[in-house]
Amino acid sequence: MRRVKRRSFWGWGYEGAGPDEAARARLAQSLAEPAALAAIASDDPWDRALHTYGRSYRDAVRAQRRDFSHPPDWVAFPTSEAEVADVLDHCARAGIAAVPFGGGSSVVGGVETRIDGDYRGVITLDLSRMARVLEIDRASRAARIQAGALGPALEDQLRPHGLTLRHFPQSFEFSSLGGWIATRSGGHFATRYTHIDDFVEALRVVTPSGVVATRRLPGSGAGPAPDRLFIGSEGTLGVITEAWVRLQDRPTRRANASVRFASFADGVRAVRALSQSGLEPANCRLLDPGEAATSAGGNGSEAILVLGFESADHDLDPWMRRAVELCRDHAGVVPDDAIRTRGDDAATREGNAGTWRNSFIGAPYLRDALVSIGVLAETFETAITWDGFERLHQRVMTEVRDALVRICGAGTLTCRFTHVYPDGPAPYYSLLAPVNRGSELEQWGEIKRVASEILGAEGATITHHHAVGRDHRDGYDRERPELFARALRAAKRELDPGWVLNPGVLFDRA
Amino acid sequence: MRRVKRRSFWGWGYEGAGPDEAARARLAQSLAEPAALAAIASDDPWDRALHTYGRSYRDAVRAQRRDFSHPPDWVAFPTSEAEVADVLDHCARAGIAAVPFGGGSSVVGGVETRIDGDYRGVITLDLSRMARVLEIDRASRAARIQAGALGPALEDQLRPHGLTLRHFPQSFEFSSLGGWIATRSGGHFATRYTHIDDFVEALRVVTPSGVVATRRLPGSGAGPAPDRLFIGSEGTLGVITEAWVRLQDRPTRRANASVRFASFADGVRAVRALSQSGLEPANCRLLDPGEAATSAGGNGSEAILVLGFESADHDLDPWMRRAVELCRDHAGVVPDDAIRTRGDDAATREGNAGTWRNSFIGAPYLRDALVSIGVLAETFETAITWDGFERLHQRVMTEVRDALVRICGAGTLTCRFTHVYPDGPAPYYSLLAPVNRGSELEQWGEIKRVASEILGAEGATITHHHAVGRDHRDGYDRERPELFARALRAAKRELDPGWVLNPGVLFDRA
Repeated sequence: MRRVKRRSFWGWGYEGAGPDEAARARLAQSLAEPAALAAIASDDPWDRALHTYGRSYRDAVRAQRRDFSHPPDWVAFPTSEAEVADVLDHCARAGIAAVPFGGGSSVVGGVETRIDGDYRGVITLDLSRMARVLEIDRASRAARIQAGALGPALEDQLRPHGLTLRHFPQSFEFSSLGGWIATRSGGHFATRYTHIDDFVEALRVVTPSGVVATRRLPGSGAGPAPDRLFIGSEGTLGVITEAWVRLQDRPTRRANASVRFASFADGVRAVRALSQSGLEPANCRLLDPGEAATSAGGNGSEAILVLGFESADHDLDPWMRRAVELCRDHAGVVPDDAIRTRGDDAATREGNAGTWRNSFIGAPYLRDALVSIGVLAETFETAITWDGFERLHQRVMTEVRDALVRICGAGTLTCRFTHVYPDGPAPYYSLLAPVNRGSELEQWGEIKRVASEILGAEGATITHHHAVGRDHRDGYDRERPELFARALRAAKRELDPGWVLNPGVLFDRA
Repeated sequence: MRRVKRRSFWGWGYEGAGPDEAARARLAQSLAEPAALAAIASDDPWDRALHTYGRSYRDAVRAQRRDFSHPPDWVAFPTSEAEVADVLDHCARAGIAAVPFGGGSSVVGGVETRIDGDYRGVITLDLSRMARVLEIDRASRAARIQAGALGPALEDQLRPHGLTLRHFPQSFEFSSLGGWIATRSGGHFATRYTHIDDFVEALRVVTPSGVVATRRLPGSGAGPAPDRLFIGSEGTLGVITEAWVRLQDRPTRRANASVRFASFADGVRAVRALSQSGLEPANCRLLDPGEAATSAGGNGSEAILVLGFESADHDLDPWMRRAVELCRDHAGVVPDDAIRTRGDDAATREGNAGTWRNSFIGAPYLRDALVSIGVLAETFETAITWDGFERLHQRVMTEVRDALVRICGAGTLTCRFTHVYPDGPAPYYSLLAPVNRGSELEQWGEIKRVASEILGAEGATITHHHAVGRDHRDGYDRERPELFARALRAAKRELDPGWVLNPGVLFDRA
């Protein structure tokens, strides 16, 4: 298995730094590959290294230390649903764990192959060879797409039809449709279509007990929604192989504005009004002063709201006019020339909105550079009701900053809203701090614990769109009702009686 | 237990016809009431008769025949979550089935107390004494409401706060919040907030294994959504006792229009364009020529689209202007004076839109009158992708009409869209036919079978918002993936090990 343009096995994106030879040698101590999988599986050290971790801060640190102590024994690259089923059969028979792998961009240990429990090995199931758009229904604006399609390839296949999924998580370049669905990914829409969930029309999921295929339905009231059991199941209940997803026409009109507020609190009040207005902007990203200065040209004391509407149908002036009016009612400053309404793509790449967009896409690359120079670069994100936000935010900004000083000696913490709902925002916190070489993981763990405990205590969710994986288990276990955990485990025993799929993610066997 | 204003125990709404004395005598043969339940349970024949059926055509026929052969043995009226748990405990210990009951408006046998299997009796759990709005969070526009609250009482309690749930199913007068959630009820919004699902922020559910309480969250990506397991569970997994629901400000602006189309097919094309425009009208009800003539002043050959927008925030002219433009692009006729934009309530009660609204609310009362004069009055509803709609509709109109003639000698069949999605409509079919006294149920069953088989074969759902209950089991069993049924049963065994809750609804024990 050779690739022309290879992905960095430890960092973001394509290869810039080659793997260390000693690490490769250690990885080469692989188990013998079973005959049944020979045609589709690899035990090449580079493949195994690439699939050892996701792309979290913790992953980057371990990879830079050349710590690949728990790689998968094989990486299988199935090309069909039947081959996925074959791999799962083999795993169940042989007592091997299977870790489904889409783009590998998990930042929560969702694809990590360090597996506790009584397994004879681990196979990573890489879906990258199942990446085609199989069918398009123009009338219903929907497409049947294989789960392994990464963002750009998926959009490339839809573009000739004038259609788009318009789900752009920050990981877009290197994350897959199946991964988005398995983790309830959050896209670029700040309102309305925040998660991938609402774009899913039907699913095909291969479980060790057989295939689950749901019916294509625009809506239904027939029992609990079957898709919703698998959306967010993070590879523990089955391997998503295909989905029918709801598409949109490619937008032809855009309206963008930057709104300045003297304080973050003013901005919060304006965004709450916007979220409850029914206007549903595509972009409604409120940046606190720190974030605004770093990524949207702010002056360091003001908050900036990046506001945008998009449509393939209608002129957006009335929407933007009313949104700006609401912002101004809440002490927002919007010079008339900061409002742009356009019928072409360029509009989104200009002004503060454009600056923000470029730093959004570039952030994961930057993170790797920071890791290599000894900076702890981490994010955590949540959602909470408006009622509870102020208290949560005060606690986070005070206690996590204190923790940065205590643990790292210094650090910065900033906040933005990535998504907003009528009943509350999804705040996203970014932190940077100097770390001591060799104790990065301990320092990271301490800070993460402080943040998670505040989220739990304040009734916020442990994750709005980064998923649970292995890293958020403590917070998730506290958030999820215990009886729901028992119901999920019971469902898992039915679908995956050998407990083959992604053990340790979401829940334990007990 | 006495009420001043009593509900009709067999028909819709309040009492017009008293119960037959012979039936009451038969029902009086009740089992002894257990001491533990004495304070909250009744074995009064009128209470038992009122809780024997829902409000379907089949229920009305059986009640008019004075066939109450399987009433509940007791009706419990718990006033607290602890009392709900006590009743479930008693049922589990004594081998008694429990049927949760909200407003009792099920049209699919969802609250029927004819229970197969090895049970020593049946208790209906009537939630009507848990009907209060407990808490309001104005900032997040949400309220904590007890599940037994019927529509009008719920809205009455929200009105002083300037808030509204705005979920108006046709059964609004006599259906409850808990019932809406348990059955994935469809409200009056034709787009965007079609089902109650999206209004649910958090739930409390009492199961025989304990209480499930989910966290109030505007959004989350932490595992499969816990609420979604209980939304649509139809009383089989637990008794919903409370929910935090998302509210809205009371609308202050409305825009309405009636659009005429020379044919239903023209109207379908226009509605598809509207559904994909992003305008998201509150009302978008397309009536076929038969339906338009009956309930919206149509001339018998034209289709009529009842179109409406509502907002508490902004002037709706731009929305309505573009919607009308789209309709005209698709051969819709809208005289300028048929478009009304208003800032007061009266606007919704005028013109064709008003005529339609009155017949919507009045329909259930009318149905009872039809039953008593020997008319089969039934409805069935579904959802399907745009791609599949035309074929489905042709088959339904041809084959169900043929069935009416074959089975009843004559009959009318009409269609409207109650809800529309970007990927497809939710068509709602109404039929009227003469029936032979004494064989109403057989004739009903034959017609229902013809309709259900077409829905199944064409890939449509067996129900968009009427739920599954006992009557839609055949169609549901075919639609639902078998492995999902197994997962649901496994979850049920965990939450309800004694299989006490609403046996026969959604799935069987096997």
